[in-house]
Amino acid sequence: MPSIHPDALRGYAEALLTAGGFASDDARQTADLLVWANLRGVDSHGVLRIPRYVEMVEQGSMVSRGTPPREVGGRGAVRVLVGGRCPGAVGMNAAVEVAADLAASHGIGWCAARAISHAGAIGYFTSKLAARGLVGIAMTASKPLMSYHGAIGEALSTNPLSVAIPAGASRQPILLDMSTAAVALGKIMAAKDAGRDIPEGWAVDAEGRTTTDPDKVAALLPMAGPKGSGLSMMIEMLTSVLAGNAVIGPVLAGTKKGGFNGMVLAVDPAAFGETDAFAAEVARLADAIHALPAASGTDAVLLPGERGAATAAVRARDGIPLAAGTSARLAALAGKLGVAIPEALDTTD
Amino acid sequence: MPSIHPDALRGYAEALLTAGGFASDDARQTADLLVWANLRGVDSHGVLRIPRYVEMVEQGSMVSRGTPPREVGGRGAVRVLVGGRCPGAVGMNAAVEVAADLAASHGIGWCAARAISHAGAIGYFTSKLAARGLVGIAMTASKPLMSYHGAIGEALSTNPLSVAIPAGASRQPILLDMSTAAVALGKIMAAKDAGRDIPEGWAVDAEGRTTTDPDKVAALLPMAGPKGSGLSMMIEMLTSVLAGNAVIGPVLAGTKKGGFNGMVLAVDPAAFGETDAFAAEVARLADAIHALPAASGTDAVLLPGERGAATAAVRARDGIPLAAGTSARLAALAGKLGVAIPEALDTTD
Repeated sequence: MPSIHPDALRGYAEALLTAGGFASDDARQTADLLVWANLRGVDSHGVLRIPRYVEMVEQGSMVSRGTPPREVGGRGAVRVLVGGRCPGAVGMNAAVEVAADLAASHGIGWCAARAISHAGAIGYFTSKLAARGLVGIAMTASKPLMSYHGAIGEALSTNPLSVAIPAGASRQPILLDMSTAAVALGKIMAAKDAGRDIPEGWAVDAEGRTTTDPDKVAALLPMAGPKGSGLSMMIEMLTSVLAGNAVIGPVLAGTKKGGFNGMVLAVDPAAFGETDAFAAEVARLADAIHALPAASGTDAVLLPGERGAATAAVRARDGIPLAAGTSARLAALAGKLGVAIPEALDTTD
Repeated sequence: MPSIHPDALRGYAEALLTAGGFASDDARQTADLLVWANLRGVDSHGVLRIPRYVEMVEQGSMVSRGTPPREVGGRGAVRVLVGGRCPGAVGMNAAVEVAADLAASHGIGWCAARAISHAGAIGYFTSKLAARGLVGIAMTASKPLMSYHGAIGEALSTNPLSVAIPAGASRQPILLDMSTAAVALGKIMAAKDAGRDIPEGWAVDAEGRTTTDPDKVAALLPMAGPKGSGLSMMIEMLTSVLAGNAVIGPVLAGTKKGGFNGMVLAVDPAAFGETDAFAAEVARLADAIHALPAASGTDAVLLPGERGAATAAVRARDGIPLAAGTSARLAALAGKLGVAIPEALDTTD
C-alpha cells in the first residue's frame, strides 16, 4: 500500500479541491479536515471523499465561495449561521469560532450552522474546542440513510454526535465521535465483497426484517434499536428543525431531496468552577478507566478517541497508508484536472 | 392486580414520604415524580422506590430539608446548584426553573444540580420544559452499575439522557428518555425469576465474557458497545466532573462510595427564529414518522415517548395497576409509619 506524509497529502488534497472548483481557503480547510481523519485511521472520512466533493461542486449541491457563512439570527448565547451549501469544514469551523466566542462571554455558546454541506469526521471540530480548554459538543444531520426503529425503509440519517473533553496540557482530549447507526455502511460493503454473512442487528431487508445476507440489505439499523433511532431523530430536531432547515420531514414528505446542517455547543469549564480541579478529575477518571482489568479477548481498555490518537502519532511519523483504490481514484481525478501527483503516490515508472 | 386513581396514589406516596422523614414540600415533589412514572407505565421508577427512599433518609444518604438547593457558582448562561443530598426531584425541579430563567435571558441555560440524590425518570424534568415551549435536555450521573466496553466488572453508571421537544399546543411533546445500558437490570431479574436465558449482548460474567445465563451476570453491558460506554462516560464528565463532584473516578480509586448529580439544559426555540415555523416542522416530522410502513412484526411506528403518553391517558382514566408485591411493601411501610392505606389498596376485609 503506498504511504504518504500528511503534509504532502494535505497539499495534494488542497490542489485537487482547488482545481475542482473550491475557493482556495475552502480547499485548505477541507483538506485539513480530510487528512485529520486519515491520520486517525478513519479513512472512510478522509481524502477518498474528494472525487465526490468535486462532483458535488460541479452539480451545485456544494457551493464554494471562499467566504465564511453569514450570521442570520440568534440572541444571547445562541447564533445561527447560514452556509448556502458551503463545504462542511467551512461551515463547522465558523461555528466553532462563534461558539467559542459565545462561551467566553456567556459560559456556554450554541452555534447552528444551517444549510452547509457534508462535514465528515465531526470529532475534528470538537477537538478544536478541547485544544482551547473548552468542552466541545457537535452534531450534524442529513437525509435518510438508515431505518427508524420498527419501520420499513430508510427514514433517518446516521446523524453523528461528538463530545470532546479537554484533559489538561499534557494529555490528549477525551474524544467521543459516534454515529447513531448500528454499524458503518462500509462494513456491510466489505462483507458483501468478501461473500460473508453479516451479524444480526446490523441491517434489515425490504420488509424491515433483520437480515444476515448483505445482498438483501435495504436499510441500516439504528444502534441499540429505539435508542439510536430516538437519538438520531433528536439530532435532526436540535440541528435541523431548531435552525429552520428541516431535512427528514420534508424529504419523507417528498418536498425536498436532501439537506445538511450542523451545530456546535462550546462549554467553558471555568464558568462552573476551578479549572485546575476540573483537569485533575478528568485525569483521575481517565486513569481509573485505564486501570480496569481487560475482559477476556480484549488487549487493552481504551478511552474514547484513544485509538485514533495513537494511530495519528504513528501515521504522522511513518506516513499515511492509502488504499490502492483511493490512490488510483485520486490519480484519475488529478489527471483530469491537471494536478501533479505527489511522488509518494506516483505509480508510473 | 389492585388499581388506584393517580390522585389517591400521589396522596399515599406523599403521606408515606412525609411520615418517613421527608419535609412536606420535598415529599410533594417526590410523590409527583414517582406517580408520573407509574402513570406512564415506567413502574420501575415509580412508587416502588418509596421504601428505599425512606431508608436512604434514615441512613443519611438522602437529606430532606424542605429548602431548595443553594446556588454556589456559574456565570452568564451557566449556574451551579448544590443539593446537599436533597431528594432528586427537589434538585432537578430547581435546576429546571433556573435553566428556564437563563434561557429567557440568554436563549439557552445550563444548570448543574450537584450532590443531589436519585432523580428517577428524568423525562419528567425535560417534559416540564417542553410544556413551557422550551427544548429540554437532562442527564443524571451516579456510581458504577454497568461495565466499561472491553473491561471486567462494573465501572460506569447506566447514566440516562433525556431530550424533550415541544410540539405545539395540540400535541404531546416528543420525549426521549433512555439509559446508556443495553437493557434495564429489571429485565435480567425477570429472566432469572422465570428461569429463562437472556439474549447475548445484555450482560457479562465475572471474566467480562458475554453470558446468556442470568445467574452468571456480573455486570450489565452498555448499549451498542463502545458507543454506550463512551456516552455514559461523557455524561459523567458533563454532569459530575464539570460541576465539581466527580463520582466514577473517586469510586474506582476507592476514595468515595457513591454520589449523584444532574444537569438541565433549556433551549428557547425563539432564540433561533420563528417559533410557529418550528412547531410546524416538528409536527411535520412527527407525521412523517407516523406515516412510515411498519416492519414485519411491529404493530405501529411510535415516536419517542408516545407509548408512555398513551399509557398515561389510560391510567389517568382507569387507575394505575400496582403489582401485588409493590402494594404489599408499601402497606408494610404504612403499618410501620402509621400511615392510612388508601381504600383501593386495602386488602384486609
